[in-house]
Amino acid sequence: MARYSPSIGRLIAELGKLPGIGNKSAQRLAFHILAQPQEQAEGLAAAILEAKKSTKLCSVCCNLTDQDPCEICSSASRNSQQICVVENPRDVSAIERMHEYKGRYHVLHGVISPMQHVGPDEIKLRELVQRLQNEPDVTELILATNPTVEGEATALYIARLLKKTGILITRIAHGLPVGGDLEYADEVTLARAMEGRREI
Amino acid sequence: MARYSPSIGRLIAELGKLPGIGNKSAQRLAFHILAQPQEQAEGLAAAILEAKKSTKLCSVCCNLTDQDPCEICSSASRNSQQICVVENPRDVSAIERMHEYKGRYHVLHGVISPMQHVGPDEIKLRELVQRLQNEPDVTELILATNPTVEGEATALYIARLLKKTGILITRIAHGLPVGGDLEYADEVTLARAMEGRREI
Repeated sequence: MARYSPSIGRLIAELGKLPGIGNKSAQRLAFHILAQPQEQAEGLAAAILEAKKSTKLCSVCCNLTDQDPCEICSSASRNSQQICVVENPRDVSAIERMHEYKGRYHVLHGVISPMQHVGPDEIKLRELVQRLQNEPDVTELILATNPTVEGEATALYIARLLKKTGILITRIAHGLPVGGDLEYADEVTLARAMEGRREI
Repeated sequence: MARYSPSIGRLIAELGKLPGIGNKSAQRLAFHILAQPQEQAEGLAAAILEAKKSTKLCSVCCNLTDQDPCEICSSASRNSQQICVVENPRDVSAIERMHEYKGRYHVLHGVISPMQHVGPDEIKLRELVQRLQNEPDVTELILATNPTVEGEATALYIARLLKKTGILITRIAHGLPVGGDLEYADEVTLARAMEGRREI
């Protein structure tokens, strides 16, 4: 016989597709959701649908946003001469948390990884090249991809690709532990890494 | 400025309400959901709503179910003389996984815990007493609450409450590590605990 009723089984299966959620965690989450008041479950479901529906990529920086251009790209108080290139939207929020960087961003949505069959065309690199042509006042490109093999290789690839534009291309310092993940860095380490950036 | 757009912020907040999901995990889950195809997000939202809508408590055993009475209570192949009393629906699935117990269940949805202000009336105990009057062929009540302080106290309370009914009341053996959680026990340990049950 089925261990769970069909609808509970389906909920557990859907929750189990999320990253880092194994079968036991999915069961625990499912029963938690079922034990909550109706509004709670509806709130979660609505938040998923609403976020999915209203979120799109900013046409300038490719970050996830509700409005286009995004809040950072359309803010007059941000320095439009600096662009910080990051792997994903979580990295933007990590850098924003330190409240020190006042430039703008470009979100690659990935890194070049031959092992994972991700080439330069699979990430938002063409958009970056295009953007630099549209924004002639950009003077510095800060490469803040993760300090991993793929992150380093992607930074190097971008540096070589854009060398001829004459824009200053810098790499955040290895204040981050090598092999680590940018989004888990603490604010101070991240600030040191940003300060110690050097031309690539 | 807001670190995330409002709809992403709301999704992170809703996910963060789930047990064991901290802020970082909630962010990771949110961005994973946003990176998935539309159908995936809709599937998760629909599963939450559908499970919440179609799941109710079995009027006999109080387990979560799509149909009433539940599959176990309405199965002719289950022994109606034994009732195994557990704390929550996950415990039912843990016991079902060992494929040895052929009786039925009663789900308390909690344990008596004066510290948490949960008394006998807050759990499905009245329903159990009522059920024993409706089902005169029950000969054994197996108390399978967790081997924690509250689980033991609840078992003792039920044993005293129902002593006068003359039904054999047993407690699963402490094959389970004391202080542990029934739903994480392996099948063999759980089977030993079931075999070694003794009258309380």
